[in-house]
Amino acid sequence: MADTLISVDLSENPHTNEKVHNRWHPDIPIAVWVEPGDDFKIETYDWTGGQIANDDDAADVRDVELEQVHYLSGPIGVKGAEPGDLLKVHILDIGAKEEMNWGFNGFFSKQNGGGFLTEHFPEAQKSIWDFHGMFTSSRHVPGVKYAGLIHPGLIGCLPDRKMLDMWNTREKALFDTEPDRVPQLAALPTTQAAHMGAMQGDARAAAAAEGARTVPPREHGGNCDIKDLSRGSTCYFPVYIDGAGLSMGDLHFSQGDGEITFCGAIEMAGWLHIQVELIKGGMEKYGIRNPIFKPSPITPKYDDYLIFEGISVDEDGGQHYLDVHIAYRQACLNAIEYLKKFGYTGAQAYAILGTAPVQGHISGVVDIPNACATLWLPNEIFDFDIMPGADGPTKHLDGSVDIPLAPDL
Amino acid sequence: MADTLISVDLSENPHTNEKVHNRWHPDIPIAVWVEPGDDFKIETYDWTGGQIANDDDAADVRDVELEQVHYLSGPIGVKGAEPGDLLKVHILDIGAKEEMNWGFNGFFSKQNGGGFLTEHFPEAQKSIWDFHGMFTSSRHVPGVKYAGLIHPGLIGCLPDRKMLDMWNTREKALFDTEPDRVPQLAALPTTQAAHMGAMQGDARAAAAAEGARTVPPREHGGNCDIKDLSRGSTCYFPVYIDGAGLSMGDLHFSQGDGEITFCGAIEMAGWLHIQVELIKGGMEKYGIRNPIFKPSPITPKYDDYLIFEGISVDEDGGQHYLDVHIAYRQACLNAIEYLKKFGYTGAQAYAILGTAPVQGHISGVVDIPNACATLWLPNEIFDFDIMPGADGPTKHLDGSVDIPLAPDL
Amino acid sequence: MADTLISVDLSENPHTNEKVHNRWHPDIPIAVWVEPGDDFKIETYDWTGGQIANDDDAADVRDVELEQVHYLSGPIGVKGAEPGDLLKVHILDIGAKEEMNWGFNGFFSKQNGGGFLTEHFPEAQKSIWDFHGMFTSSRHVPGVKYAGLIHPGLIGCLPDRKMLDMWNTREKALFDTEPDRVPQLAALPTTQAAHMGAMQGDARAAAAAEGARTVPPREHGGNCDIKDLSRGSTCYFPVYIDGAGLSMGDLHFSQGDGEITFCGAIEMAGWLHIQVELIKGGMEKYGIRNPIFKPSPITPKYDDYLIFEGISVDEDGGQHYLDVHIAYRQACLNAIEYLKKFGYTGAQAYAILGTAPVQGHISGVVDIPNACATLWLPNEIFDFDIMPGADGPTKHLDGSVDIPLAPDL
Amino acid sequence: MADTLISVDLSENPHTNEKVHNRWHPDIPIAVWVEPGDDFKIETYDWTGGQIANDDDAADVRDVELEQVHYLSGPIGVKGAEPGDLLKVHILDIGAKEEMNWGFNGFFSKQNGGGFLTEHFPEAQKSIWDFHGMFTSSRHVPGVKYAGLIHPGLIGCLPDRKMLDMWNTREKALFDTEPDRVPQLAALPTTQAAHMGAMQGDARAAAAAEGARTVPPREHGGNCDIKDLSRGSTCYFPVYIDGAGLSMGDLHFSQGDGEITFCGAIEMAGWLHIQVELIKGGMEKYGIRNPIFKPSPITPKYDDYLIFEGISVDEDGGQHYLDVHIAYRQACLNAIEYLKKFGYTGAQAYAILGTAPVQGHISGVVDIPNACATLWLPNEIFDFDIMPGADGPTKHLDGSVDIPLAPDL
Repeated sequence: MADTLISVDLSENPHTNEKVHNRWHPDIPIAVWVEPGDDFKIETYDWTGGQIANDDDAADVRDVELEQVHYLSGPIGVKGAEPGDLLKVHILDIGAKEEMNWGFNGFFSKQNGGGFLTEHFPEAQKSIWDFHGMFTSSRHVPGVKYAGLIHPGLIGCLPDRKMLDMWNTREKALFDTEPDRVPQLAALPTTQAAHMGAMQGDARAAAAAEGARTVPPREHGGNCDIKDLSRGSTCYFPVYIDGAGLSMGDLHFSQGDGEITFCGAIEMAGWLHIQVELIKGGMEKYGIRNPIFKPSPITPKYDDYLIFEGISVDEDGGQHYLDVHIAYRQACLNAIEYLKKFGYTGAQAYAILGTAPVQGHISGVVDIPNACATLWLPNEIFDFDIMPGADGPTKHLDGSVDIPLAPDL
Repeated sequence: MADTLISVDLSENPHTNEKVHNRWHPDIPIAVWVEPGDDFKIETYDWTGGQIANDDDAADVRDVELEQVHYLSGPIGVKGAEPGDLLKVHILDIGAKEEMNWGFNGFFSKQNGGGFLTEHFPEAQKSIWDFHGMFTSSRHVPGVKYAGLIHPGLIGCLPDRKMLDMWNTREKALFDTEPDRVPQLAALPTTQAAHMGAMQGDARAAAAAEGARTVPPREHGGNCDIKDLSRGSTCYFPVYIDGAGLSMGDLHFSQGDGEITFCGAIEMAGWLHIQVELIKGGMEKYGIRNPIFKPSPITPKYDDYLIFEGISVDEDGGQHYLDVHIAYRQACLNAIEYLKKFGYTGAQAYAILGTAPVQGHISGVVDIPNACATLWLPNEIFDFDIMPGADGPTKHLDGSVDIPLAPDL
Repeated sequence: MADTLISVDLSENPHTNEKVHNRWHPDIPIAVWVEPGDDFKIETYDWTGGQIANDDDAADVRDVELEQVHYLSGPIGVKGAEPGDLLKVHILDIGAKEEMNWGFNGFFSKQNGGGFLTEHFPEAQKSIWDFHGMFTSSRHVPGVKYAGLIHPGLIGCLPDRKMLDMWNTREKALFDTEPDRVPQLAALPTTQAAHMGAMQGDARAAAAAEGARTVPPREHGGNCDIKDLSRGSTCYFPVYIDGAGLSMGDLHFSQGDGEITFCGAIEMAGWLHIQVELIKGGMEKYGIRNPIFKPSPITPKYDDYLIFEGISVDEDGGQHYLDVHIAYRQACLNAIEYLKKFGYTGAQAYAILGTAPVQGHISGVVDIPNACATLWLPNEIFDFDIMPGADGPTKHLDGSVDIPLAPDL
Repeated sequence: MADTLISVDLSENPHTNEKVHNRWHPDIPIAVWVEPGDDFKIETYDWTGGQIANDDDAADVRDVELEQVHYLSGPIGVKGAEPGDLLKVHILDIGAKEEMNWGFNGFFSKQNGGGFLTEHFPEAQKSIWDFHGMFTSSRHVPGVKYAGLIHPGLIGCLPDRKMLDMWNTREKALFDTEPDRVPQLAALPTTQAAHMGAMQGDARAAAAAEGARTVPPREHGGNCDIKDLSRGSTCYFPVYIDGAGLSMGDLHFSQGDGEITFCGAIEMAGWLHIQVELIKGGMEKYGIRNPIFKPSPITPKYDDYLIFEGISVDEDGGQHYLDVHIAYRQACLNAIEYLKKFGYTGAQAYAILGTAPVQGHISGVVDIPNACATLWLPNEIFDFDIMPGADGPTKHLDGSVDIPLAPDL
């Protein structure tokens, strides 16, 4: 049996747990030390640290304190790790905490974070997803069931001082181009709700004031939200400080490419069973700047797709230059319109795209001026046939169930 | 045996063939009529109409006349098709022309079209790929061989007048924001090298002056360059005019997501065997704005990947807001650096990413400010092992072979 | 959380557990009742009930009391189930018992059960396989690691009286054709080590004397040892008695087609999470005589194979008529010879074929007089390349490690 | 362009073509010589040499002269090949002859060859399958369409004298155990309809009298009828004579595991594009006795299965000892009964199992006395849903179409 090196108590505030933190900073003390070759278990909170309840009211999603996120377990020190190494992490397994056998998906209010389609879904909504062994379904989204493609949304090593400074500088520069924008352009450091692990006193205060938020993915990996970095995969992370300082959290039971609903996947608390090894000097040997990984041999085989195209012309007909973001948004909107013909509400369709293992491909990025993105929707997750036919679609849902919405106050 | 309804003679100038055209315009006369349910063959030129030779000199890629492209075969009229229908096209098979059993991949000069990585590879280069049955390899890129994922880069129905006007208006508006940019922001109508099928005289001149260029993908599909719209797939195209007017061309033997080298895949001349059916009123029934499709049951099974991440921070460290284009560029650059460690030149690595069935995923588009894109490189196309290990990479190529380059004049 | 309806204590003798049995008989009392639609967990012993230890001595495999096997958990009564129904069982998940995070594979002595290659491996041998999350490896078989394709070797409903009598009659008839054969032709009823669940007294004694052994697969399913009936699959079992009486056990962490080593897969104790539903009258509606099933959407993706052929000519050159059993034996022997060239001992190679997710296909059964069977060996389970090349194989093992053997006494 | 080294004219009797033969004998002269590394094309007759017509009358299947089969193209000499080498054959592509864009499937009369289910389908029947690019469908079997998994049913190198003698000796010994059996136990040498390639005169007569029939698979490969040895695969064949003498034929557009209908797959005339290489001394280096192969990276992705089980109890309830042949027969009969519930006739269901890419697995061969075999039926080949449900099956066929039958005379 692998030992559990970091435990979390879901009934306790994560700020009471010194082996948890929610900012990236080189000075956060290593919480546990391991040897290369060791395998062990790490428990994690859900990314919000328990702010969201299993009920039919989206007020908690509307009112979420985003400054709290993401609660990560770690940092894990790996003996012998030095800057320039690659830390090989084999994700041997991931599971839910016994006491929280469900997850949530939410759309944030445009006033508090927003999301990929926030102009179309500007208010907070929440769906609850129950886990049935390897499968999940939702009382708020009838007609779909999927096997979990469980993965950590967030994993990576602590930055060194130089990298931290670079992050803060470049993100501040972007933020400053439009400081009053809602949603904001970047999540800058804030001491509000900062949790610096075992740090105390002035050192803690100083680190909290400059600790990088965990929101974006960066060079070290971090909040990549890559659905395919799932249990069974092997990842290679850049090491910046002695001991590496690996942290992880934000587990997802299932998610589509892009995590388009922002809150985002089916979010869960749980545990990871991992093994770590070192490739000494691996960053230089392999020319590595961002993590690389090999996906798992065990993933749900949903490979019968209906594919939607989108191009970089926006909802108002405006032409954009090779903008994949807009092209993917159009592909998603096209899929939502399609699913509505079968009886889904727009919110339900949006939630499916956020939680099911849909693929989002950058199909064409050179044919000026239009990028072309494709959204791959797996047919097999539906209880009914969604392929087009001469007779037109059948409405399989009568609209009696929808995803709870909490209006902005 | 299915009849060949449109033939092309590769030794003849495509402008002599009245069943070929290289602009989108509603007035281009239907070249051949078919009934719903018919299956038949259509031959096509390579997209440049034969401008590129099987040799070791990239001058033809440098000097390509882009106003000529893309030579499409059609339009095919489908009896009974009306605006608002969906034209179901089953691609039963695709193959190379017997007399041209090879294809080409090129990087355009930044002075003449450029490409996804044109800042890194600003000059014209060309690689030649020989076809060995279902497989391809190149004398300019040793160590890789792949099975073809053959597909038409360009397929769709003629626009109606209203759609054509909309295209021209919005693309002109973008172009005008930076009219002197090199490469240009959009490819506007031009009579230079226009081929309007069987049109003659004043009508032809008028149509050529306003016919939409075939360069970008648009609502009708068009130059989507989607590698998965391959032989065996079933596509559903919006119909805008009576008879539909389906045209196709720009065949690719193999291509990666994004077609990043612009010229772009392994470009080829060849034939398609297709079957057409109608879903009357299908656009409204299914809420269709862009084509949708079901991928083929027969595709190369290269599913053992090494995955590279990229974020929306540019080469100079500049922070961009959820820009997937930049994130994918970083993922591609990361993969190129990695492959160089095994002995490839940058140009060879770039050509591999453009021609092999790599996947490009929009992995995260909500974690402000960084988008995260992933580049999936199939291990199995290499003659040697490309996975990272403790001993570091082995150089399998000695640099004696590279992709021919033609400097700008 | 799904309730655990049947628990097993691995430190207790399975005969003390009234919700466990090791014979098939219609009179075994239902251990627990559930409703259609319920999902719940069931724990199981390993098939031998704990006779095999995690050590390096094969004496326990040699001396195993086969009359004890297989310890099944159940019978589970499903309310409303009647003869002629189909019981739909959705296997939501399967896992190992926390306290036994390992499994075993054994070859039985030819004197006590034997196996598929018992003429070639006549003495008892045992390998221990450790579980690392979703993966397994063995200290006795270096160089391989696989993800688990976890499944119950044995699952099905209680027979009615008529079916039980038919089983006993036909198996006795076969046994009697060669009653002294070693190994025996069939495993007939015996009271030795019989465990009849909650039955007591004379009724128990009578049932034990005629209860069908659990060794073979039969019309109800039973000991099918089908590796693809894995977690995530959905099975449809014939119902013969009121309440159905579903029992299960003999969990395998991983196994190849044929379970050729007999003891057989990687045998484990563990739990299943299942959901049950009824198709009333389903046997007649669908013409069902044996179970049918739909495999899981989640299985290890080991699909890069090296395939070995075998024909129905035996080791002495004797020609057999379309005998798939012999053809598959030859394919297995061919694979073993091949693997020996890379340094494996024959026993190690045999254990790999028994425990890895190899496929065994009935490739040709009509081309008189030779059947052709194929053994599909997944390349990806090996640490090294096993494909043939011009330079010949490299010995990757030095013979210092082998599978413990316990000579017959 | 690869040269076509052996051409066949389907309008000519195959006996007029000196580069064709239908017996295995070491003295058949090499028809064409190639160098290691060469790639080239080989045309082949259908296995019967054109005896079967595209019509609705099964008389030709009933009256087929089985002594003619199989017409093979070759032998191809590979310079430098010596006994003990492995001949690596890369099947680069396979296609149909332009002038025969269809194939046939037949059940032979029990009086003339029979088949796997000849007791259930004792009379001759024939279905015709049209090719639509990569797909096939039949006017005699509505409701199914599949992509082709095209492969040579028969391929291998000439035996040497010693091997030929061994074949003849052991097959004769089997035949002699029941010489009057119908169908016969083995297909012994016969001069009737023998075609010995370019051999002439007495030598030809002597060779024809002892040449091994091409019916069974043997050590060299031969009539393995392995559906997965398809275009794109790489095979390694034992070499017995100088020059190897590779011959091939019996192309199949699609076939299920077991080729259960005997005539058997969708039989076709066509061409192969292959490349040959040598592994000197490969038989000893790798311990090779029968061919081994690596399947193609390009195969139809039909991987959503409904699986039927069968055990080794025969139709009369007789118990057999671990007999996989009988177990697979039961699995096939179970599938046929199931498909009849959807409206298929038994013959249509049998034809589907023979022609579609069904899998036949040896699932259990050690659980005395029952072998367990599984038949994997791909759901995606049907126009309708074949999964079981609470409402029972829907009859999708009205019985108005069946497979033509020609009664025994």
